[in-house]
Amino acid sequence: MRVAIFRKAHFNAAHRLHNPHWSDEKNEEVYGLCNNSNYHGHNYELIVKVTGEVDEESGYLMDLKVLSDIIKKHVEHVFDHKNLNLDIPYFKDVIPSTENFCYLIHQILSDVIDEDKEVQITLYETPRNYVQYPA
Amino acid sequence: MRVAIFRKAHFNAAHRLHNPHWSDEKNEEVYGLCNNSNYHGHNYELIVKVTGEVDEESGYLMDLKVLSDIIKKHVEHVFDHKNLNLDIPYFKDVIPSTENFCYLIHQILSDVIDEDKEVQITLYETPRNYVQYPA
Amino acid sequence: MRVAIFRKAHFNAAHRLHNPHWSDEKNEEVYGLCNNSNYHGHNYELIVKVTGEVDEESGYLMDLKVLSDIIKKHVEHVFDHKNLNLDIPYFKDVIPSTENFCYLIHQILSDVIDEDKEVQITLYETPRNYVQYPA
Amino acid sequence: MRVAIFRKAHFNAAHRLHNPHWSDEKNEEVYGLCNNSNYHGHNYELIVKVTGEVDEESGYLMDLKVLSDIIKKHVEHVFDHKNLNLDIPYFKDVIPSTENFCYLIHQILSDVIDEDKEVQITLYETPRNYVQYPA
Amino acid sequence: MRVAIFRKAHFNAAHRLHNPHWSDEKNEEVYGLCNNSNYHGHNYELIVKVTGEVDEESGYLMDLKVLSDIIKKHVEHVFDHKNLNLDIPYFKDVIPSTENFCYLIHQILSDVIDEDKEVQITLYETPRNYVQYPA
Amino acid sequence: MRVAIFRKAHFNAAHRLHNPHWSDEKNEEVYGLCNNSNYHGHNYELIVKVTGEVDEESGYLMDLKVLSDIIKKHVEHVFDHKNLNLDIPYFKDVIPSTENFCYLIHQILSDVIDEDKEVQITLYETPRNYVQYPA
Repeated sequence: MRVAIFRKAHFNAAHRLHNPHWSDEKNEEVYGLCNNSNYHGHNYELIVKVTGEVDEESGYLMDLKVLSDIIKKHVEHVFDHKNLNLDIPYFKDVIPSTENFCYLIHQILSDVIDEDKEVQITLYETPRNYVQYPA
Repeated sequence: MRVAIFRKAHFNAAHRLHNPHWSDEKNEEVYGLCNNSNYHGHNYELIVKVTGEVDEESGYLMDLKVLSDIIKKHVEHVFDHKNLNLDIPYFKDVIPSTENFCYLIHQILSDVIDEDKEVQITLYETPRNYVQYPA
Repeated sequence: MRVAIFRKAHFNAAHRLHNPHWSDEKNEEVYGLCNNSNYHGHNYELIVKVTGEVDEESGYLMDLKVLSDIIKKHVEHVFDHKNLNLDIPYFKDVIPSTENFCYLIHQILSDVIDEDKEVQITLYETPRNYVQYPA
Repeated sequence: MRVAIFRKAHFNAAHRLHNPHWSDEKNEEVYGLCNNSNYHGHNYELIVKVTGEVDEESGYLMDLKVLSDIIKKHVEHVFDHKNLNLDIPYFKDVIPSTENFCYLIHQILSDVIDEDKEVQITLYETPRNYVQYPA
Repeated sequence: MRVAIFRKAHFNAAHRLHNPHWSDEKNEEVYGLCNNSNYHGHNYELIVKVTGEVDEESGYLMDLKVLSDIIKKHVEHVFDHKNLNLDIPYFKDVIPSTENFCYLIHQILSDVIDEDKEVQITLYETPRNYVQYPA
Repeated sequence: MRVAIFRKAHFNAAHRLHNPHWSDEKNEEVYGLCNNSNYHGHNYELIVKVTGEVDEESGYLMDLKVLSDIIKKHVEHVFDHKNLNLDIPYFKDVIPSTENFCYLIHQILSDVIDEDKEVQITLYETPRNYVQYPA
């Protein structure tokens, strides 16, 4: 019996979209307000989907309390109330767009969730803009 | 023209997670607060997805009023304001986890919706925890 | 500068509406499905409003982290995953209606929040039914 | 790196479900209240999903500001505050059901979004009823 | 013990804002898109607040099932899937703005709810625009 | 006929809570994660309530399109994608707490909305934490 379980989490962070290999004009043209050199920020809403087989004895695919604790330790604790550009080494050379951020969270959680399960991440930058990986 | 239609519904119920083949310690360890012998409860939010071909004459895949009535009769009427462990025979020998409950609702609705249509169930136990079957 | 701050919290519980001084018929007539002797349950959403003066130095009426911890300790820890009728002594002789439950939470929180502040409670039994005290 | 991005939009419109090849009785039977000859209306919520490869330099699949402007120009500007039956030529001969409306918006947006990307539309007629194309 | 109880309801309708005593230019200038002669429509979300004393025996201010039935009979049944301008006599000489519509629903419900209770109406025309009466 | 109208808006910004007259230890103790020297950020949700008399001719308290444009010009344009501490002169000497930010938005909008109307601001820093002024 293959099901998917979902857990929603929440954190907030500052960031700035800026490609150092581009001119200021190109950065302004591509990123607009998101290029503000003093940073801006978001309440990120995160949905973690885990797909796999239900354990017959417990009736659980995976204890949602355990999943919630994994998200707290590996995502919320790492990113909450942080500046993505300045506080997160991964974003030294990677643009902290929602696409790249969603991909990073997928890498982090795939590494700590059992290999026989599939992980998909949905990350809301605002209530109207969000990204999903893998597509 | 193949589309999916969705209908949301709502009901509430009490339940308790407890495996009678386990010791009290193991039940406490696996289910934590959900093992409370006096039960606790939830407002369950249900999303029924039906996939199939649109009828050219009516412009409908299926009348959403009909789908809504099917959900009322076969799900809300059966589970609303009930104790899953005590009032629902299926859960005499099956743990009423969200995974198993989602699967049961899928079985019930697949039986009463035309075979040329596919049914997928999403069941929210809380606004932050939910399950989907089939995955 | 007088403002109001709000904090939302969440917990779930089972309950049953039953007046032992009434006949079964009257209980059934007044409470309907809510009278189910095996209990049913809800995800309760709670909004705590605290009104008072802003501290000029900190810019805070009250640290929302402190308010959140007070709610966790005095409300969530007490009621989450409980059966209101069986696990909460207050409801031995009081009907656990949303009205009475909202009033009880107001009493609990008013006792532990500074007297120079006013507390108002909004308690959602379902997303469509809720109660506010004081009115 | 293949991801999906989503943008939510909002508009409102009037419509009526009526098949001119049917008798009044059959229209009433199939469409019920939706057949009211004086029209009724909805706040439509739209979710546009675009799937494709992330551009390494910009970190974007597609600028969400650009996607938002495309939706404003080709969907909101065309349908907002309109009567679907009377103001939209496409619905002269097609029933403006949510299924057909969702399909039309997919056709419109697929035509103006790069061919190397896939478009999926989710259209809410009410908060509890919605349609997705392709399924 | 004075509390307030709230019940949310939902219906949809078409309307048009047009003052027959004004020129077409003035109507266009004041009402903009809302003046479309073919009508447009909305999913109206309604919140009915009733304030009064809790009955000690039942623990209820008022049975929310009764309140829900009153709203169904006197509001949803009257306005759902209707054209406010053409189907509702009250709006022959009154502009069906959200302000006036909110006031009308207040008059209707105040007449059928016990005089010892106060009624307040909140009416959402869209998720971002709403009106409250009395203020 | 006195009513209240409401308009919701949305913007995002970075900020940091830090009192320069305090030691680092006291700042850390009072503000915790919110004291991060590299800033963090939020999606702010804003509700503007305007109370006054309905104009009998137009049926409007105030055109919500006009109110929406006022909010765009005087709030969204000023604060969206900004760093409150660095980009907003008012917060050079004032802590950008939600309490103080809510008060500032009230001052700004009260100045540009007709004096015969009352303005109240509700500002969400996160979906679970928000502030209202005047209380």
